[in-house]
Amino acid sequence: MDSYIAPVELNKAHRLINHGPTVLVSARHDGVDNVMAAAWACALDFMPPKLTVVLDKSAKTREFVEKSGLFAIQVPTAAQLQLTHKVGNQSLVDHPDKLLTSGVELFHVDGHDLPFVAGCSAWLACKLIPEPHNQQAYDLFIGEVVGAWSDTRVFKDGHWRYESADPAWRSLHYVAGGHFYAIGDPLSAVDGVQE
Amino acid sequence: MDSYIAPVELNKAHRLINHGPTVLVSARHDGVDNVMAAAWACALDFMPPKLTVVLDKSAKTREFVEKSGLFAIQVPTAAQLQLTHKVGNQSLVDHPDKLLTSGVELFHVDGHDLPFVAGCSAWLACKLIPEPHNQQAYDLFIGEVVGAWSDTRVFKDGHWRYESADPAWRSLHYVAGGHFYAIGDPLSAVDGVQE
Repeated sequence: MDSYIAPVELNKAHRLINHGPTVLVSARHDGVDNVMAAAWACALDFMPPKLTVVLDKSAKTREFVEKSGLFAIQVPTAAQLQLTHKVGNQSLVDHPDKLLTSGVELFHVDGHDLPFVAGCSAWLACKLIPEPHNQQAYDLFIGEVVGAWSDTRVFKDGHWRYESADPAWRSLHYVAGGHFYAIGDPLSAVDGVQE
Repeated sequence: MDSYIAPVELNKAHRLINHGPTVLVSARHDGVDNVMAAAWACALDFMPPKLTVVLDKSAKTREFVEKSGLFAIQVPTAAQLQLTHKVGNQSLVDHPDKLLTSGVELFHVDGHDLPFVAGCSAWLACKLIPEPHNQQAYDLFIGEVVGAWSDTRVFKDGHWRYESADPAWRSLHYVAGGHFYAIGDPLSAVDGVQE
């Protein structure tokens, strides 16, 4: 694990996705790893932290999540624009070498049997909370966040540092057709508090 | 309704929230209107369009949604930073004049018995899809989008125009403690397509 990566307290884990970034979802089953992009991921609870993610029935990653009961959510950066677009548009079914050709490099975190994508700004290890009706009717999956980490060059001491980090670290916010927006400038309400 | 406001095709309605903005949730019950802010709202399906939103049990808006079966999701702008922060931090229970003191101005759309917040960039009229288990266990509400509109100065012909619109139109992305980020610059993948 890169020396810049540090754990994030679980009670602050929601902050890693609170601003609505497009994420990468990764999962492992039977010795095979996969990674996909998902614009539809969202925090669900503070403590224990939970999140939702929509995984289409055609996605191989979904099958791995259902079989392993585990998945990782990670926040890709502007530097990973092409990677994010590519893993979001290719299925492992048709492209068995998808991760290689997309430039995905995986790393391991002790205690978590999951593939984590290198170069992201934040990682959330999740345990599936099985909800068969949601999964079947809505493609909606709920996970409990059991571990969280950030790259301290862009998220440190519980806060995103987009304003001082290199713009290549900015989160991606997908719209449609390969078009994203990067996260922009900070805005603070006048009675905002420093937490 | 303002002359800049135009309907958005339902099959493109997800684009209004696909980039993960913090939203305003409004609802009406028994002649009373309320508006709250929610960072945890997310697209769920394309067609018919659906979305999820997390509504805490302490929120009066939640009660109105449960009783009326209807709610509106709207995308506030950087110009509405204070308004968004204020409606997100005050409850109608303690502040009966909350909308007035927050500067919320409501407008009507024919055919929808809902309060819509003026000055936003986009609006989604939603019909609750009752899922009692999700609502009780996770505070998670699912809505079907039955109407969508945008302010054409910032979303037109199915696309956000943040790069050419005044920065005051940018969406808000909440982190914590009154701190938000505005949406930033566009980024396009090299094989992105114009839809």
